[in-house]
Amino acid sequence: MAEEAWGRWGPDDERGALNLIGPEQVRRAASLVRTGRPISLAQPISDRLLVPSHRHKVMHFMGRDGGDYAAGSRRPGGFQFAEDTVVLPLHTGTHIDALCHAWYGDKLYNGFSGNSVRSTSGAGHCGIDKFPPIVTRGVLLDLVGLGGGPLAPSEIVGRAQVEAALERAGLRLEPGDAVLVRTGWLEAQQPGEQADFNREPGLDLEAALFLAEAGVAVVGADNFAVEVLPFAEGTVFPVHQRLIRDFGIPLIEGLVLKPLAEAGATAFLFVAAPLPVTGGTGSPLNPVAVL
Amino acid sequence: MAEEAWGRWGPDDERGALNLIGPEQVRRAASLVRTGRPISLAQPISDRLLVPSHRHKVMHFMGRDGGDYAAGSRRPGGFQFAEDTVVLPLHTGTHIDALCHAWYGDKLYNGFSGNSVRSTSGAGHCGIDKFPPIVTRGVLLDLVGLGGGPLAPSEIVGRAQVEAALERAGLRLEPGDAVLVRTGWLEAQQPGEQADFNREPGLDLEAALFLAEAGVAVVGADNFAVEVLPFAEGTVFPVHQRLIRDFGIPLIEGLVLKPLAEAGATAFLFVAAPLPVTGGTGSPLNPVAVL
Amino acid sequence: MAEEAWGRWGPDDERGALNLIGPEQVRRAASLVRTGRPISLAQPISDRLLVPSHRHKVMHFMGRDGGDYAAGSRRPGGFQFAEDTVVLPLHTGTHIDALCHAWYGDKLYNGFSGNSVRSTSGAGHCGIDKFPPIVTRGVLLDLVGLGGGPLAPSEIVGRAQVEAALERAGLRLEPGDAVLVRTGWLEAQQPGEQADFNREPGLDLEAALFLAEAGVAVVGADNFAVEVLPFAEGTVFPVHQRLIRDFGIPLIEGLVLKPLAEAGATAFLFVAAPLPVTGGTGSPLNPVAVL
Amino acid sequence: MAEEAWGRWGPDDERGALNLIGPEQVRRAASLVRTGRPISLAQPISDRLLVPSHRHKVMHFMGRDGGDYAAGSRRPGGFQFAEDTVVLPLHTGTHIDALCHAWYGDKLYNGFSGNSVRSTSGAGHCGIDKFPPIVTRGVLLDLVGLGGGPLAPSEIVGRAQVEAALERAGLRLEPGDAVLVRTGWLEAQQPGEQADFNREPGLDLEAALFLAEAGVAVVGADNFAVEVLPFAEGTVFPVHQRLIRDFGIPLIEGLVLKPLAEAGATAFLFVAAPLPVTGGTGSPLNPVAVL
Repeated sequence: MAEEAWGRWGPDDERGALNLIGPEQVRRAASLVRTGRPISLAQPISDRLLVPSHRHKVMHFMGRDGGDYAAGSRRPGGFQFAEDTVVLPLHTGTHIDALCHAWYGDKLYNGFSGNSVRSTSGAGHCGIDKFPPIVTRGVLLDLVGLGGGPLAPSEIVGRAQVEAALERAGLRLEPGDAVLVRTGWLEAQQPGEQADFNREPGLDLEAALFLAEAGVAVVGADNFAVEVLPFAEGTVFPVHQRLIRDFGIPLIEGLVLKPLAEAGATAFLFVAAPLPVTGGTGSPLNPVAVL
Repeated sequence: MAEEAWGRWGPDDERGALNLIGPEQVRRAASLVRTGRPISLAQPISDRLLVPSHRHKVMHFMGRDGGDYAAGSRRPGGFQFAEDTVVLPLHTGTHIDALCHAWYGDKLYNGFSGNSVRSTSGAGHCGIDKFPPIVTRGVLLDLVGLGGGPLAPSEIVGRAQVEAALERAGLRLEPGDAVLVRTGWLEAQQPGEQADFNREPGLDLEAALFLAEAGVAVVGADNFAVEVLPFAEGTVFPVHQRLIRDFGIPLIEGLVLKPLAEAGATAFLFVAAPLPVTGGTGSPLNPVAVL
Repeated sequence: MAEEAWGRWGPDDERGALNLIGPEQVRRAASLVRTGRPISLAQPISDRLLVPSHRHKVMHFMGRDGGDYAAGSRRPGGFQFAEDTVVLPLHTGTHIDALCHAWYGDKLYNGFSGNSVRSTSGAGHCGIDKFPPIVTRGVLLDLVGLGGGPLAPSEIVGRAQVEAALERAGLRLEPGDAVLVRTGWLEAQQPGEQADFNREPGLDLEAALFLAEAGVAVVGADNFAVEVLPFAEGTVFPVHQRLIRDFGIPLIEGLVLKPLAEAGATAFLFVAAPLPVTGGTGSPLNPVAVL
Repeated sequence: MAEEAWGRWGPDDERGALNLIGPEQVRRAASLVRTGRPISLAQPISDRLLVPSHRHKVMHFMGRDGGDYAAGSRRPGGFQFAEDTVVLPLHTGTHIDALCHAWYGDKLYNGFSGNSVRSTSGAGHCGIDKFPPIVTRGVLLDLVGLGGGPLAPSEIVGRAQVEAALERAGLRLEPGDAVLVRTGWLEAQQPGEQADFNREPGLDLEAALFLAEAGVAVVGADNFAVEVLPFAEGTVFPVHQRLIRDFGIPLIEGLVLKPLAEAGATAFLFVAAPLPVTGGTGSPLNPVAVL
């Protein structure tokens, strides 16, 4: 009933379901490349990113720029340059959750203590730095295509919808897949308007468990939390609790999936390499689909 | 003699030599996958990263962690989570330079004005957000393997060395390649000791121009600046000036190349997707070689 | 008609009207202490501070805290401690503007070039680090008390209102005074509601010039910009332009003045010591009135 | 033997020894003003501040500056401005420790639980926001003047030295005093050289307890930790543990005291107003002595 993947890859494992991606899965994924077209699935990173009001916004500061030269800065040997710094909340925009991001019962994935995640050094276990680069088959579940438009706020993507989307794509899930769920939430947002983060379409727990039991390595979506909001009565982030902590499956949030759907992609080479922030709970990400 | 690539891909181009990676190059790269082993080429990101003393260090802050629950924080619905923020100088650790990072004569690549790079909005032209994901053939130039050990401080990697390394690998450069130069600088650093950023082995201008004229799309290295330091008399960052600004070739710095060499890799699928920071002058990067 | 104070304290002066506070003004101010009650005039600093939507919010990060010890962190010699870092936009909450904060015609106060304010090193001239601590007589202009309630959005505080408030307080302005204007704007804001920064009561230019010509050293207010918004037709921050750049008078914004008024204060010892950020354009401030 | 001040000002008190500064102390302090000369006791804030290698450095970023206008930024209504942001570790440079900064036995000053200090909201008790502005008599203990030069690294300032310095100044301690100890450490540092934070002159525990029992409200010094380093055998920050947690006495570190000594000051009006960072463990400070 719980902790399904604990111990499956040994007591010290911190990679979780990413272990399901072996050499065979990588080779199979690479063999899917047909047209040779890479597509970025990331939102631009700026202070205009959609974030809930309780979350920090990105800050971007220039430490040196063209204006400084216009104002008279020296250019030894003719050389001019610009550099900058971002203040970057790691769960902002398009990002992946590390296995230390969500848990319950004071235990992280694979039984590591929640106490190993501290202010002083970040996550001693299951940090984002423990993930290998993700190179596997990506599978697009296009609920927008299936339904003829973006899902409604709070609309549930249940197991039936997942199966219908798979059938529409002519695909069966295979172990190690990265499943990307297009709900239409992100593309339905209007520039300049505050997004409603409390009512978004997404997976319910049954659908998420269906994916987990099929052996997927990663679940991503084009919404804020992968899972539907509000949650089912009496639960709080149930998909996060079960997939991340019990199955060791990382979630990718905030994906840009419309261009992928418009390109007609269903299964493709998927590459996503998180920044290895030591002890980090996640990472902004620029995932790539190669068609 | 200069501005070799300006106008080559139109007056509005901000991708530079990445245009040399077309569908054919992507397909060829994907076809190089043999064993199905992805290798990360990135350094871990933490405040222990090697940075010159005049550069900012990374800061990593936990906004919520396991300690807070140990101290009594509420866990509605059982849910526990951790989140964090990094203060991230964009030219730190393993990173890629955008085409707005370096220039001379007040003109960026393709003739854009240096004045378009400002504090208020970052780079109006040639920002890192203008780069597509990079999916191409990677070629390892293993100078360490060639010479039997890490190059000496300030040792020049000239055209002859580049050609010898290519010959040793049994490779010829092709348009769109990502060339990765292993000098041994990074792996020669000792933990806890201050690195000497002023004396590092690297490419001289002749070698860099040889690569540029061969049509490579990207040049990376395992050192701080790709190019040799100190610079040739009377010049300051000549390889940055010429490759970035005149040829539109992005540089990748701080690569971890020893594991790649130890795996015997010479040509491989190379995937690197910068974070699309709007107006950013570069991006930390977790480049992936897939063998 | 302009640049009234330029050269008045020498060509190198970067203190502006703060020069009007001499030893006599300091002694006179100290002699105003009657009851021995210090009152802070500062808003708390947190991410709940009122800021316009285009401005960054404060971030506050704990680097070590009690939760870490609860989770098991070592306590050598029994010692436990907590430490933290803020990301602090300098014009947030209760703060003072340096003389490099606002200008026109490419010239700062006293004729320094605007080009001396750069990304690389901050303000080469007229930075907040050039200000001495401010110790002088504070004078409260209580427009709320005068009018029987907070001023309306966009209500002008003109010269007549300033003179009426002075008369009500039984005071005459003296050189070196710090004049604090209570409009009621801040105290009229409701917790949890977005403040309207585009329509606030404040000084018009005539009133500001009246204060400047009376020889005040500092002008503060309990609103966002000291001056009324929207500005008079065809002008943009006219009070900032004239007082800061032409008279060298720093502005203090976001003051908490209700407790001061409720204590019946009219003239008092005023002490405000900006953080000497090298090249900073302003500083958060905890000004103190001592009654 | 411990927790001397707990309960003294009620079970809810979070001001500690600052309660010893009442109206009478404020009035007495104001009456000490003679020449009308304010002296700042703060170090400039920049990335050149002396910090131990394990602590973060200050970052200062310009969000808009004169260079942007030189590069062509618009100036509506002629208005030009500059603004900036600092990343500011709160225990950097000249700063004051809040009562939640140091403790032992899992209990803060006055018995509050260490668990109330968390990543999520900072210090729920004894944060720097709980301090009133400090306006009291400052007393300079000039050990440099007493000894004819800066104290040696690790030289102990014991009770005898404190009493000798008081006698030399012709002063007796009174309740509510702010005692400032000049060891010469800061002024002995050489620009560009790494300071030795592990060997500094400062108070030993006996001297600190002597001050505490005399009823001082605040203890400051011109060194990094007020107390001598290394600590007495078997102890870690004993002065922090006892003064902050047991007596509720805040410490001020990194003071610039040479100008004060050179002005011949011994007792003076001392004003220090921390930034009221909600839940902060300390604050950078620009303390002012008014002679």
